[in-house]
Amino acid sequence: MLRFRCIQLFTSPFEAPFIQSFKPHTSISCAQMGSYSTTSSSAQNSPKLVFRQLFEKESSTYTYLLADASHPQKPALLIDPVDKTADRDLALVKELGLKLIYAINTHVHADHVTGSGLIKTKFPGVKSIISKASNAKADLFVEPGDKIYFGDIFLEVHATPGHTLGCVTYVTGDGPNQPQPRMAFTGDALLIRGCGRTDFQGGSSDKLYDSVHSQIFTLPKDTLLYPAHDYKGFTVSTVGEEMLYNPRLSKDKETFKNIMQNLNLSYPKMMDVAVPANMVCGLQETKSEAC
Amino acid sequence: MLRFRCIQLFTSPFEAPFIQSFKPHTSISCAQMGSYSTTSSSAQNSPKLVFRQLFEKESSTYTYLLADASHPQKPALLIDPVDKTADRDLALVKELGLKLIYAINTHVHADHVTGSGLIKTKFPGVKSIISKASNAKADLFVEPGDKIYFGDIFLEVHATPGHTLGCVTYVTGDGPNQPQPRMAFTGDALLIRGCGRTDFQGGSSDKLYDSVHSQIFTLPKDTLLYPAHDYKGFTVSTVGEEMLYNPRLSKDKETFKNIMQNLNLSYPKMMDVAVPANMVCGLQETKSEAC
Repeated sequence: MLRFRCIQLFTSPFEAPFIQSFKPHTSISCAQMGSYSTTSSSAQNSPKLVFRQLFEKESSTYTYLLADASHPQKPALLIDPVDKTADRDLALVKELGLKLIYAINTHVHADHVTGSGLIKTKFPGVKSIISKASNAKADLFVEPGDKIYFGDIFLEVHATPGHTLGCVTYVTGDGPNQPQPRMAFTGDALLIRGCGRTDFQGGSSDKLYDSVHSQIFTLPKDTLLYPAHDYKGFTVSTVGEEMLYNPRLSKDKETFKNIMQNLNLSYPKMMDVAVPANMVCGLQETKSEAC
Repeated sequence: MLRFRCIQLFTSPFEAPFIQSFKPHTSISCAQMGSYSTTSSSAQNSPKLVFRQLFEKESSTYTYLLADASHPQKPALLIDPVDKTADRDLALVKELGLKLIYAINTHVHADHVTGSGLIKTKFPGVKSIISKASNAKADLFVEPGDKIYFGDIFLEVHATPGHTLGCVTYVTGDGPNQPQPRMAFTGDALLIRGCGRTDFQGGSSDKLYDSVHSQIFTLPKDTLLYPAHDYKGFTVSTVGEEMLYNPRLSKDKETFKNIMQNLNLSYPKMMDVAVPANMVCGLQETKSEAC
């Protein structure tokens, strides 16, 4: 059963993020909670999303920077940061005058080392987030139905296992003052005209098909899809496009499973380094203390 | 003296684009011309920009696809297409149901071969566009102040010489129903936290400084900047950001010129192939017939 929770920045009296559980499908939002820290200045303005897509060329990984520029603190988060480009991303955060609060992973990556641990050593106030189902270390764990707030904007957590057991897709909120069209950060569950492999890390083509069809293809067709990787130079797609043109996931389930079983992919060269490191925020030497 | 002209898609009775000159600083727009082909369906809706940023990894080139999705024909254009990724771009145009009308270059590139000629051989209705100052071949030549219409959306042509003599920046229109914030496609004149080199092809650091400061830094600060290349994984910047943080162009002119004179860059490996090819739309063997 899904639980609905909010993870939200509190500036006072709490420094740490606040997590609260709600009954399923409740309509209450974090913004309605009495202790919400928004100011009149923020309340008068609609949230304004700052959004940057950043590329790490070696592993063809996309990192995403999102912030609420209308909030007095400009709280920001990074989705799928890479260790090699962490300094670039942090410099940008600083130049844009943002307050980085979360470093979030969609899953335990096998092709690059996450930057979340490194970022936390440089910006100690940042909290790392990953799904509980990933079994990895982090400061905060999310489950399906959770909402991650940064200012007045939030991401919903959708479980999309299949590439790994713990894969999630983060989707911008469906509500007033949330970005339109919606945006889904799909990790490796759904790539543009492709998808992540399903032959290791608890992968399952059966599960991946169900995940994408139940959690992503049910979103509005104009929802913008931002994957964790692209190898052909695409930057964005939409739900409507992938439903029509994804050469794997637009097929029926049996055809999809057959495609995935016959990919004959080589063993990922970074796997033996990346997976153990990414179980502990990318910093093996310091283990859980860095997470 | 600037001349103001409109380049606009006519579906009937002309198949070819229509170019007309107006007196400088006239307020007339193409949409006000009697023979404009918009329909009531289009007129009732605000233009809706379809926008895709596409990357060619080998030369780190960005190609941009823009279209007016509210127009019945969904007219589209490609800015700085690359020969190696032309098939990818054309497949996307087809999947999105767009009608490609223009293949546009910001300048004669020295680091990759343009896809404009190749695209014209595959989509014969497409017209190639480049600046008159480039001295290259094309179907249509633009000059500062020209407007390039695709549906109800237009790009303004700003002369930004300095990387080459014929460099231009294409800027989305400043008017009702034009995309907000504005978007500037800067070619190699202004890169994110950098700029194009100025040591060949009629390059001039003096001219480049004046171009960027007079034609780009005078745009609204929230104008989105989309360059022809990025080598660090950035996808977009803003005028406000580059005015503050561009390590070259935020300096005074003498400092900038000194920086550019001491870059000690190697000779571009593609230059002797790319420049002659790009003078004729990337297709040397067929020369001007393909342009």
